[in-house]
Amino acid sequence: MVTKIIEFEKPRLKDPLFIEGLPGVGNVGRIAAGYLAEQLKAKKFAELFSSHFMPFVLLHQSSAVHVLKNEFYYWKAEKKGQRDLIILIGDSQSVDSEGHYEVVDAILDFVLGYGVKDMITLAGLGIGEATTTPKVIGAVSEPELIDKYKNFGIDFEAGSKVGTIVGASGLLIGLGKTRGIKGVCLLGETAGFHLIPDPKSAEALLKVLTKILNLKIDLTKLEKKVKDMEEFIKKVENVQRKALAQLLKPPEKPEEKEKLTYIG
Amino acid sequence: MVTKIIEFEKPRLKDPLFIEGLPGVGNVGRIAAGYLAEQLKAKKFAELFSSHFMPFVLLHQSSAVHVLKNEFYYWKAEKKGQRDLIILIGDSQSVDSEGHYEVVDAILDFVLGYGVKDMITLAGLGIGEATTTPKVIGAVSEPELIDKYKNFGIDFEAGSKVGTIVGASGLLIGLGKTRGIKGVCLLGETAGFHLIPDPKSAEALLKVLTKILNLKIDLTKLEKKVKDMEEFIKKVENVQRKALAQLLKPPEKPEEKEKLTYIG
Amino acid sequence: MVTKIIEFEKPRLKDPLFIEGLPGVGNVGRIAAGYLAEQLKAKKFAELFSSHFMPFVLLHQSSAVHVLKNEFYYWKAEKKGQRDLIILIGDSQSVDSEGHYEVVDAILDFVLGYGVKDMITLAGLGIGEATTTPKVIGAVSEPELIDKYKNFGIDFEAGSKVGTIVGASGLLIGLGKTRGIKGVCLLGETAGFHLIPDPKSAEALLKVLTKILNLKIDLTKLEKKVKDMEEFIKKVENVQRKALAQLLKPPEKPEEKEKLTYIG
Amino acid sequence: MVTKIIEFEKPRLKDPLFIEGLPGVGNVGRIAAGYLAEQLKAKKFAELFSSHFMPFVLLHQSSAVHVLKNEFYYWKAEKKGQRDLIILIGDSQSVDSEGHYEVVDAILDFVLGYGVKDMITLAGLGIGEATTTPKVIGAVSEPELIDKYKNFGIDFEAGSKVGTIVGASGLLIGLGKTRGIKGVCLLGETAGFHLIPDPKSAEALLKVLTKILNLKIDLTKLEKKVKDMEEFIKKVENVQRKALAQLLKPPEKPEEKEKLTYIG
Repeated sequence: MVTKIIEFEKPRLKDPLFIEGLPGVGNVGRIAAGYLAEQLKAKKFAELFSSHFMPFVLLHQSSAVHVLKNEFYYWKAEKKGQRDLIILIGDSQSVDSEGHYEVVDAILDFVLGYGVKDMITLAGLGIGEATTTPKVIGAVSEPELIDKYKNFGIDFEAGSKVGTIVGASGLLIGLGKTRGIKGVCLLGETAGFHLIPDPKSAEALLKVLTKILNLKIDLTKLEKKVKDMEEFIKKVENVQRKALAQLLKPPEKPEEKEKLTYIG
Repeated sequence: MVTKIIEFEKPRLKDPLFIEGLPGVGNVGRIAAGYLAEQLKAKKFAELFSSHFMPFVLLHQSSAVHVLKNEFYYWKAEKKGQRDLIILIGDSQSVDSEGHYEVVDAILDFVLGYGVKDMITLAGLGIGEATTTPKVIGAVSEPELIDKYKNFGIDFEAGSKVGTIVGASGLLIGLGKTRGIKGVCLLGETAGFHLIPDPKSAEALLKVLTKILNLKIDLTKLEKKVKDMEEFIKKVENVQRKALAQLLKPPEKPEEKEKLTYIG
Repeated sequence: MVTKIIEFEKPRLKDPLFIEGLPGVGNVGRIAAGYLAEQLKAKKFAELFSSHFMPFVLLHQSSAVHVLKNEFYYWKAEKKGQRDLIILIGDSQSVDSEGHYEVVDAILDFVLGYGVKDMITLAGLGIGEATTTPKVIGAVSEPELIDKYKNFGIDFEAGSKVGTIVGASGLLIGLGKTRGIKGVCLLGETAGFHLIPDPKSAEALLKVLTKILNLKIDLTKLEKKVKDMEEFIKKVENVQRKALAQLLKPPEKPEEKEKLTYIG
Repeated sequence: MVTKIIEFEKPRLKDPLFIEGLPGVGNVGRIAAGYLAEQLKAKKFAELFSSHFMPFVLLHQSSAVHVLKNEFYYWKAEKKGQRDLIILIGDSQSVDSEGHYEVVDAILDFVLGYGVKDMITLAGLGIGEATTTPKVIGAVSEPELIDKYKNFGIDFEAGSKVGTIVGASGLLIGLGKTRGIKGVCLLGETAGFHLIPDPKSAEALLKVLTKILNLKIDLTKLEKKVKDMEEFIKKVENVQRKALAQLLKPPEKPEEKEKLTYIG
């Protein structure tokens, strides 16, 4: 099956801005994009499945299951100075190197079909130590964009410090450029431990993002939301690691009597 | 070749129910589905081969070999209140993450061709300790199904405890839903050690399953059957692990004299 | 490119028998098939390349290089009681699990194009200890074949001891059966250490094989040939292991000053 | 997406010679080819992207990012005795075994479109110890080429010492031969440590190469250039290793309370 997008609805969107927030370091991007979608009451209109996600389903409290997926939401501008939005959130990124390219390519194909010409990707930037005042670092598809975004409290001086952006948030910007989409990646500073979601960093991202989007959203419930999703995130991460470990573990004590011979 | 299904016969089936039991934790699902097929004298009508299985053949006592495969059986209802069945059993699941999606997709394509609209998948649930009274836990493609299955002794309260279902039994339910198939996964509690098949847990599954299917089968030979297949299961598992270990092992003592140089 | 066969010549062959001997445990099959092709002065008519082989070239004494490949030779029967032959030898088998299926499938497609209806595959059987009187064990695509081959000194009683045949020699028999080719796999007992080619075991294989084929070949040069190829075999094996180890090795001493941050 | 080449311009080239220098041991080939392209003011006309490169983007000082890529440059001969050139340099080679074949195949397809009939690939040869007088070793697609190149100070006697050439420089020669392209691989001796670029070895390559190409270029800025790119190379290598390590690391301390159960 590789990568497949199932569309429930074909919303009419006017020059939509694409926003991405998938799991990653501190789950900063995912928390920020998910909270934004929820506060805006954005509507889900498509789901992405991929054989590059781990092969398991998640069980809900209700005993219903769902396959790992990414979800596309849309929101329509309500007043002047706002933009129609397509927001991408999800359970997982690709677990293999090749899959990152493939999933990102499928996402770009999809949003190009809605006329997307610019995007904002959201991610965490692991700095190796906890911080109470996380900065928001910016990376762009082309230097000209810095001018456009420089008045929103984004640090564009960190290029030399940062080095690389791994995963969807970086690839979307990098490959998007080759497809005619301009993009900025907003990176919230965070300690960088995978299993611990970082609401403080997500809040920093959201403050910058809502300024850019000319939106007002209530940030007071963020910390509680994060608490709720923490258990779930740990579940996914743990199973991914266990499944990998399982695959790589040595045979259970070789049994002498069995005389199983290896033939080549 | 990727994944290929060879069909020997095209049985006419009326609204068949699809039942899956492939190898997994404690081989619970595999034992249960295999025993069911045998007791019903279900007829094999198709075989599935995949390059996502390990690349070896199994030698029978007779010195004949067979490639790892999954097998489709059918059985026709004999009286009112019963359903035509398609039963899937096999030697192996995919050994790589991507392959799980691909094989499950091929299975769904195949059973959809027979008009399958609902399914029951069978698996083990590793609980980390032996139990003499294994429960049967249920997971569903949609909450509405709980009503349908709640009177068969299935525990639908364990969603929060369980978390995830790895492999074909889970993916079939999760991806089946996106293709219009409703499904329930029955999980027999078992200690969770791969190499030890658990007939007690399989028996618990079969008791629930035969009630749902309105079937009577003799469960007294189950323990003996499991004894017989134990040797075979160990063989497959051991070779899979050895082959992986083989691939990953370091070079045999680097020889100084050889002067083999590595070039990039 | 995946897997590609380049054909130099399209020989007219009459009901050819296909013989395979690729590298494996003790390189027994490879030595036997290579020596047979050489003694018969069989003619190379096709080469198989695959992205499932390791990505390197081998340097010859002459400073010319060649990509890892498998090679098809043909030989025409010279008298009654003999068969036209297609012999497959080569530098390597697939290095990944999926690739084994794919390469074997390409081989089957190719020989089916020449009307092949039966085959003999040659391999080593690692028994964990040196033996001076290696037996030849047989495995068949269907039990009926045992009758045909039982008078050539092949042990067909070892099925329960052997368990599995890993790689091309087994898969060719197993998958060949699903494509209408009957086959027997001849396994020469050998200690089972990869880097040490075993001419004694190859000789045992050749004695059985030449009887089946109604051929007389001089076996006295076998030991010397093996000595010559030993260096080459070690080269290939060593580089394969090094390349894998290279891929998996941890970063060279993390440098504190560098401040390279990992972003997700 | 797999592997994709985006062409900005379709230069008219007359019987161009193809020169490749991608990252590898000591980055010798990459330094040499990059310096050559720069000194010649060769013009970039195409970029190659591949899902076989690592899935991250690199951040420039300017905060602009770019996806890992390979780049094709062309240069037109300026006087008699010179050749039109296509020069390939880049950030990365494939990170998986299969990808090497695929990327090399895409490169060959592309240059064949420009009528390329011969090529020179540039690489390092790790000899395990530092040397101040690195030799240039040669390997060829066919022995006849040695005559053509023997008067340029290339050592063609090292075939038996070298053994193998891993990666693009070797595969281009080996696979190119099957596509009708003749090639020589020039290997600069270097210590063989990945993270340390070796300008001395690249200089040795360039001296031989410019003689072959009948070009004069200023080699005095080479050492400084290498200093500048050192930081960048370390970045890429480090992230690749970290990403692999990340993927393979065990679950962070198993939490007893969590009761996450693994199901198969």
